[in-house]
This record gives sequence, structure tokens and C-alpha cells, in this order.
Amino acid sequence: MNFKDLETPCLLLDKAKLEANAARMKARAEKLGVALRPHVKTLKSVEAAKIYAPRDGRITVSTLREAELFAEAGYKDIFYAVGVTPNKLERAAKIVKGGVDLTLLIDTVEGARAISDVSENSAIPLSAMIEIDVDGHRAGIPWDSDDLMPIAQALTIHGRLRGVATHAGGSYGCKSLEAIADMAEQERDFTVRAVERLRDAGFDAPEVSVGSTPTALMARDLTGVTELRAGVYASFDLVMAGLGVCAVNDIALSVLCSVIGHQEEKGWILVDAGWMAVSRDLGTSGQAVDQRYGAVCAADGKFLADYVLHAVNQEQGIITRRDGGPIDKDVFAYGTQLRILPNHACATAAQFDQYVVLGSGNEPTAVWPRVNAW
Amino acid sequence: MNFKDLETPCLLLDKAKLEANAARMKARAEKLGVALRPHVKTLKSVEAAKIYAPRDGRITVSTLREAELFAEAGYKDIFYAVGVTPNKLERAAKIVKGGVDLTLLIDTVEGARAISDVSENSAIPLSAMIEIDVDGHRAGIPWDSDDLMPIAQALTIHGRLRGVATHAGGSYGCKSLEAIADMAEQERDFTVRAVERLRDAGFDAPEVSVGSTPTALMARDLTGVTELRAGVYASFDLVMAGLGVCAVNDIALSVLCSVIGHQEEKGWILVDAGWMAVSRDLGTSGQAVDQRYGAVCAADGKFLADYVLHAVNQEQGIITRRDGGPIDKDVFAYGTQLRILPNHACATAAQFDQYVVLGSGNEPTAVWPRVNAW
Repeated sequence: MNFKDLETPCLLLDKAKLEANAARMKARAEKLGVALRPHVKTLKSVEAAKIYAPRDGRITVSTLREAELFAEAGYKDIFYAVGVTPNKLERAAKIVKGGVDLTLLIDTVEGARAISDVSENSAIPLSAMIEIDVDGHRAGIPWDSDDLMPIAQALTIHGRLRGVATHAGGSYGCKSLEAIADMAEQERDFTVRAVERLRDAGFDAPEVSVGSTPTALMARDLTGVTELRAGVYASFDLVMAGLGVCAVNDIALSVLCSVIGHQEEKGWILVDAGWMAVSRDLGTSGQAVDQRYGAVCAADGKFLADYVLHAVNQEQGIITRRDGGPIDKDVFAYGTQLRILPNHACATAAQFDQYVVLGSGNEPTAVWPRVNAW
Repeated sequence: MNFKDLETPCLLLDKAKLEANAARMKARAEKLGVALRPHVKTLKSVEAAKIYAPRDGRITVSTLREAELFAEAGYKDIFYAVGVTPNKLERAAKIVKGGVDLTLLIDTVEGARAISDVSENSAIPLSAMIEIDVDGHRAGIPWDSDDLMPIAQALTIHGRLRGVATHAGGSYGCKSLEAIADMAEQERDFTVRAVERLRDAGFDAPEVSVGSTPTALMARDLTGVTELRAGVYASFDLVMAGLGVCAVNDIALSVLCSVIGHQEEKGWILVDAGWMAVSRDLGTSGQAVDQRYGAVCAADGKFLADYVLHAVNQEQGIITRRDGGPIDKDVFAYGTQLRILPNHACATAAQFDQYVVLGSGNEPTAVWPRVNAW
């Protein structure tokens, strides 16, 4: 496989950067004294996960399809970290029956009852964490909620309580590294308070699971926490670079595209990467630097700071100069390959079914499949 | 398969609505006296296409993977309606070698030369349309461009000129049906002028291919046009409903999801359809009614006009009342199934790998696969 013969659009994964990002988070978890439970939802690839998620360790998934794929690949300790609905419990029970230590997530008494009921009916005790809301960002109950004990009670009739979990998604909106570190402390503090309430009430709740890439990288201390979850750090993306938790050059993922043509008088370079390739994610639009639909690099990965993927149609993207100035048609000639760095790696990767893996000289060395859908 | 046992999120396709939408566009093309070349890029499913694109007729595709899939299913007249890049030409030649009448799209002399060169080297004459820009919306050259003859000349050294093509994507931004009809006339007028220049110069250019769902439905007259392309009409979506070219009740596609929980004091209903299921498309944000990430229906398809999918995380969506008022937790109890109507059917469907097809009583009758990626 020759780089210049790659058919575009395709998704490139820089293996050396993936390895460096994996090593960085591993060192963080070790320094903080917690187990790392990498989230595989960004790359959804067993081959990629081998680099950042040891097969004998813990992983996090966002769908039961991921759980099944990774179970088949030998992963045995899997946390499905999305609030579970009743119509997924039979399938979850099957995964547990297959020998996987699968942990579910709930934040309602009704959910706890459903898990307990399926545990009884299938004679497979299902385990769950109770989701704690630490930042008002999405699901979960507050640490001091009156619902905490009723949920634990309903769950443990026939199911098993694993502990408490949270995701400080609010960290994505922080405006400084200091604010992220404060968010990490809040994440730690509220979950530990919740688990202490459970333990004081006599429940066996061994795990305190926290994490998001920003808080994982910025936390000062994780006393009381048992495991750290993070996912997007494996590849990083422009949102993370905008937050300051990585450099643009750390981003391991990019979409290779080719120049289709130009609208010279408008300063447009048309490429064959539209929203179908890069997604519609505008995650940097609220950050200091709005990267629109993605930053632009030359085919060899050199950052072209003056350009941005300004607009996207289904299979066509429009690159412009950030200052709106005229483009150099000779530099962006018909057929020229370019790379687009993603705003949000999870969203861009989801548009593809495989990665072209690059070696240290940018040469394609392998193709790794990924799994989508549910 | 029982509707209430469907695991969520999943993508529902209402067969009766698909059939009605197909019949409507077929009647339009007949009335306008042009051949219909349906675009299969929205549903990307051979089984669905059987309803709106006869196998012995013309189709349009947005990727070579679609071209290969439909060729294998027996479709022989395929227009790949995205400006082609050099790294796709070998694959295109293979498709032609397999007996398909494949038409490519270009708007540069360099692209024309590349097609001519591959035609010569592979001894397979490749055919192409020249893309005309009729609305300043994306690629293509103006009808009166100085590049028109040089492109036709470069192409026809070893390749074949099929004619001219355009897509009036600007019609998506029109504010009235009258404005869409005017856009359709502009689309017709500019492409016919372009082809007349080619014919006057002695080129054999039989085809004049125009279309977008809005202009196809609103065009008053298509004199000079030979074929009409449209895609999203098969399922329609909220963007089309917002433009007024269909009713909300015509939308054949929806995402079935389940209630995970609530944040009652915030008026939030959490569901298991996040951006991974509905996409990040905010296509109605500039319309009179902003549908945010999608409109909400009960499981049976009844429109719940007071609610909207307000925000999305990867695997979680947040439904709120449009007026921000309090939610009725009993109506949206844990586990309740709901449907989300998509802003943009092409984008939402792309998040899935199959459709659950519903019969006239909303009962699941089949599962149809779709193809993604390139």
C-alpha cells in the first residue's frame, strides 16, 4: 500500500502518536494511584485498543455491540457506561453468561428494579453502578439524593451493586486548566460522598469510577477513587487541543482527502471530505479558536495553520483561508491530498469502518477495522 | 419481531410512506416529461431502492461503494454525482469493465485530462458530465465559463462527454415555494445554456441532468432537461418539511429510542439516542421552526408537537418541552419508547447499518441492510 495511492476519503491513524497518548494516560493513572479503565468508544477497534487497553485489564464501552466485540477478543471486565434501558437487559445477560464481568449503569429505581428482575428471571446476577451527577451536565442523581438508597435497595434484591460512577462532561466547557482541575476535584468529591453514604448504610460498594479525558489529565488528587475512565485521549482531537490538554501535534487521527476543484474568486478549495467523512461536529465553535469543521494539514501531516475546513456538504468540503484571503491554486492543485484534523475524534471516526494505520514515516502499515452502530 | 421488543436505538422505515413518496416523485417526473434518476445516497439500501428506483432505470450515487453495491444488484446506469478525484479512476474503470454504464462528474481541465488518460491506459472509455454551478452553492463552473470548451476537449480525447449536470443545493435555503420554483427555473436555464454552448461547438452532449428534491417538486417547466435527480424525497425529513415541500407526516424515517431517566427539575427526559444515533445535523436551525436535533413522536408515530430533542451527547439525548416547561414523568416513564424524526435523513441514516421496516400497522416486517463509508 502506497500513501499516494490511498483512495480518499479515508481515515488515518498515526500509530506512534496513539502509543505516546496511551503512555501518557497510563502514567497519569499510575501517578494518581487508580486503575485505568480506558473507554474504547472513540476508536471502537480491538487492534487499536491493544495499544491503550491491555486485554487482561478493564475497559469501558458505549454500546453492547462494543461489549460483544471486545468480549470476543478476550476482554473480560467491561463497563457499559450509558444508562441502560429494559430492552437491552436480555442481551446484557447473554454477555455475562458468556463469562464477561459486565457492569451496567443506572440512576433510577425503575432501572434498578428492571436489572433485579432480569437477574432473577435469567438466574444471572447483573451488576450495576449508580450514576452520580457531579456537574449538571447529563444523567445521574446528586450525591445527596433521596433516591440513592432506594436505587441500591431495589438493585440488590437480585442484582449486584458495584459502586458509583460519573462522567464530568462539563469539563469540556472549562475555560482554563485550573478550572478543569477544579472540576476533577468536584468529580472526585461528589462521587466519594455518594459511595460513603452507601457504605455507611451497609451496602457493599467497592468501586468509585470517575473520568473524562480533561479531568483525568488535570486531576490533582483522586483519593477515594478506584478507577479512572477516559477515551478520547487515545487519539485526541481539536476540542482537546482547544482545552489545552494536548497539542495539535498529538492528534493521532485525521481524514485524508483530495482536492476536487476550486471556486477561485470565492477563495474555495473543494475536497472530497464532506460531513459524511468529518461529521457535522462543530465542537470548537465555543472555544477561543473556532476550527469550523476541522483544521487542515498537508498530506505529510504538516499543519497548514492559515486554512480551515469552512463548510461541508454530504461528500464535499470547502476549505478556505481563515482570513478569507485568496488561495494559492498551485499549492492546492486538483488531486492534491490533504489531511483534516477532527474537532471530535469520536464523531469523525464513527463515519468510517476502518483505519489506515501509519508508521513513523507516514507509510501505511495496516488496516484496522472498527465497529459502528449498536 | 415485536415492536415493543425492538432494542433501541434503531432506525425505523415506514414502507407505506416510502411508497407514497416514491409515487409522488415518479408522477412529477412524468408530468415534467423527464427521466427520473433517483439518488440512492439517502437510504443506501438496495431493498429500499426497489421501491423508488426501478432496476432497469437510472440511479445516482454519492460513493463508488454505492456504485459497486447497486451494480452487483443489477443496476446498470449509474451516475456518480460527486466531482471525481484521480485516485478513484482505476476503481471506476473496474466498475465500467463489469458492464455498468457509469458516468463521472468533473469541473476542471485537470479532471478531464485524468479521465481521458485513464480511459486510454485502461482501454475503457470513461464517461463524464461537466458540472455547472447554477447557484454559487458548491462546485461547478458557470454556464458561460471560458473553461467549458477546454474541459470538453480534454475529456473527449479518450473519454466520453455525456452532457452537463448540476445540483441546486441553494434551494435548501429558499424561504418560499415560489423561491424554490424560481431556483428550479434558474437551474434549468443555466444548464440548458451550457449544453447549448457545447452542442453549438460540435460536441455530442445528450444529457442535461438537474435536480434537488425541492426544485424537482416545485419546477414549473423543465424544457431542455433530460433527467431529474432527487434523493431525500424517498424518506423526506424535517428540513424538507420546513421548506414546505412535504408534511411532517410524510417523513418515512425515524429513530426509535427509549427513556433512560429524567432530570425533573430541569425539565429533561434522557433517552438512548444521542448524536451517534441522530447525527449532529442542525439543518432546521435557520428555518422558521428550529427542530434542534429532531422532533419527537410517540412510539406509534403520533407527533408530540410540544417536545423536541434539545441536546445530544454521544449515546444520550435530552428531550425537553419546546416552551421549557415541566415534563410529565408518567407519560415519559423509564423505558418508554419514543421516535425522533430526523432533521436530515441522509445524515441520520448514515449512523445506522440497517432499517427496521414497518408495515401499515407499525409492525416490524423486515430488516434491510444499508451500506456506509466509501
